Amino acid sequence: MSEVSGIHAVEALLREAPERVRLLLLQRNRRDARIEALLGLAAERNVRHEFAPRQRLDRLGGSAHQGAVALCHELRLTTEAEFEDQFDRWPSPKLFLVLDGINDPRNLGACVRTAAAAGVHAILWPRRRSAPLSAAALKAAAGTAEQATLVEVANLARRLEWLKRLGVWLIGADGGASRPWTAPDFTRNAAIVVGNEGQGLRQLTRKTCDELVAIPMAGAVGSLNVAVATGVMLFEAVRQRTLAHSGPSPIDMSAATHRMPPP
Amino acid sequence: MSEVSGIHAVEALLREAPERVRLLLLQRNRRDARIEALLGLAAERNVRHEFAPRQRLDRLGGSAHQGAVALCHELRLTTEAEFEDQFDRWPSPKLFLVLDGINDPRNLGACVRTAAAAGVHAILWPRRRSAPLSAAALKAAAGTAEQATLVEVANLARRLEWLKRLGVWLIGADGGASRPWTAPDFTRNAAIVVGNEGQGLRQLTRKTCDELVAIPMAGAVGSLNVAVATGVMLFEAVRQRTLAHSGPSPIDMSAATHRMPPP
Repeated sequence: MSEVSGIHAVEALLREAPERVRLLLLQRNRRDARIEALLGLAAERNVRHEFAPRQRLDRLGGSAHQGAVALCHELRLTTEAEFEDQFDRWPSPKLFLVLDGINDPRNLGACVRTAAAAGVHAILWPRRRSAPLSAAALKAAAGTAEQATLVEVANLARRLEWLKRLGVWLIGADGGASRPWTAPDFTRNAAIVVGNEGQGLRQLTRKTCDELVAIPMAGAVGSLNVAVATGVMLFEAVRQRTLAHSGPSPIDMSAATHRMPPP
Repeated sequence: MSEVSGIHAVEALLREAPERVRLLLLQRNRRDARIEALLGLAAERNVRHEFAPRQRLDRLGGSAHQGAVALCHELRLTTEAEFEDQFDRWPSPKLFLVLDGINDPRNLGACVRTAAAAGVHAILWPRRRSAPLSAAALKAAAGTAEQATLVEVANLARRLEWLKRLGVWLIGADGGASRPWTAPDFTRNAAIVVGNEGQGLRQLTRKTCDELVAIPMAGAVGSLNVAVATGVMLFEAVRQRTLAHSGPSPIDMSAATHRMPPP
């Protein structure tokens, strides 16, 4: 079983995937407006709740639960066979995110959240070299992990070759590349490949990519946080795809497949 | 005194601002290649080091110090008077980041890192409604806080009006806005204004902005992490400014003021 903690993350989960919540735990003696709003949402979505002492929430959700922890049915990952089956059903241009060995669960979660916001069709990472989808990762994902297509792959290089054969353009983020992140044509079927926090892309992954690009750094800054770099790359893809939909300028958002959040 | 912990952050600090390090603490009985590299760098930069038991590092740098904690002279913030003095000396188009009350020190640090990477001239936030530049913030900033111009302001609305009078265009990130983040002309003197993690921009800040824009969200995703949203906005500015420097397409990075990190 997995836990999602924090008011923001629990609220998103109740809104978007209430069927995943087995039990909502709320901290006893803590009834403020935000907790009341969660209670209302839980009732509306037919999610069972219970009040519990703070110590129990601390044990389950870490110290930053803000009085709310959702106990969830195990997050269901997509198998590689299911991914292959699904592949043709995603509309083109398809967009994927490949995470080549993220170390920090919080970064993994933030990458998932960012990818979901950018409308990525699936997020892939190597099973053996990645941070786990822990409670910390799910909290950073803010309720998006439950909606996203997440694929742990056995052999990343082989999966990248498979994507290539199916016409997906592999764009790797690499600090040493000479082309900028805005250079690729993101309106094709594409996968954005980002490496881990310390070393970036592994040698084999780098070689497998069709194109390597860098996000330029001002002054003496070494690199961006991996989730921020992922966001910069993915929203360049969104920008190009939105432009392609609606003419050169200005961008007409109503023509895009992305909707605006409510005010 | 403040601490910077973690191999990556300490290395960046030794490279970029060694004068800020009062003492480098390394964990006793932990001599691997990365620690050796830090030792070499410290010797080269004339930074004093000491070996200490793990418990001492845990106490100073939290549990994720990876065997390295730098004890630093207090981080020197830029006063508002200094900011005003400096204002005309920054080349145009100037670029600023305004953080309207970030709650989480890690997000504050990640925003600082992102802004430094984008070549922002100064980062401003309200003194009374912001997470502190704690050890966690400095770790997330990965050594960039020491190089950036950081200004805590007494009254944010008044400071924004001041910027406006001096011809800085205020672009606020607001999930409810109807224009996309790519719509503004970022080649002018500009300040990007982002709100806090839960509520976004405060009412008064929102009203003071010249223009409000949104980053569109796919599916049912509520929002991006604030540092990711900051990165998406800032690198749209970098993209437009680089384009303006070097013609329409493709972007010639050699003409930009941003340098590439070494391979």
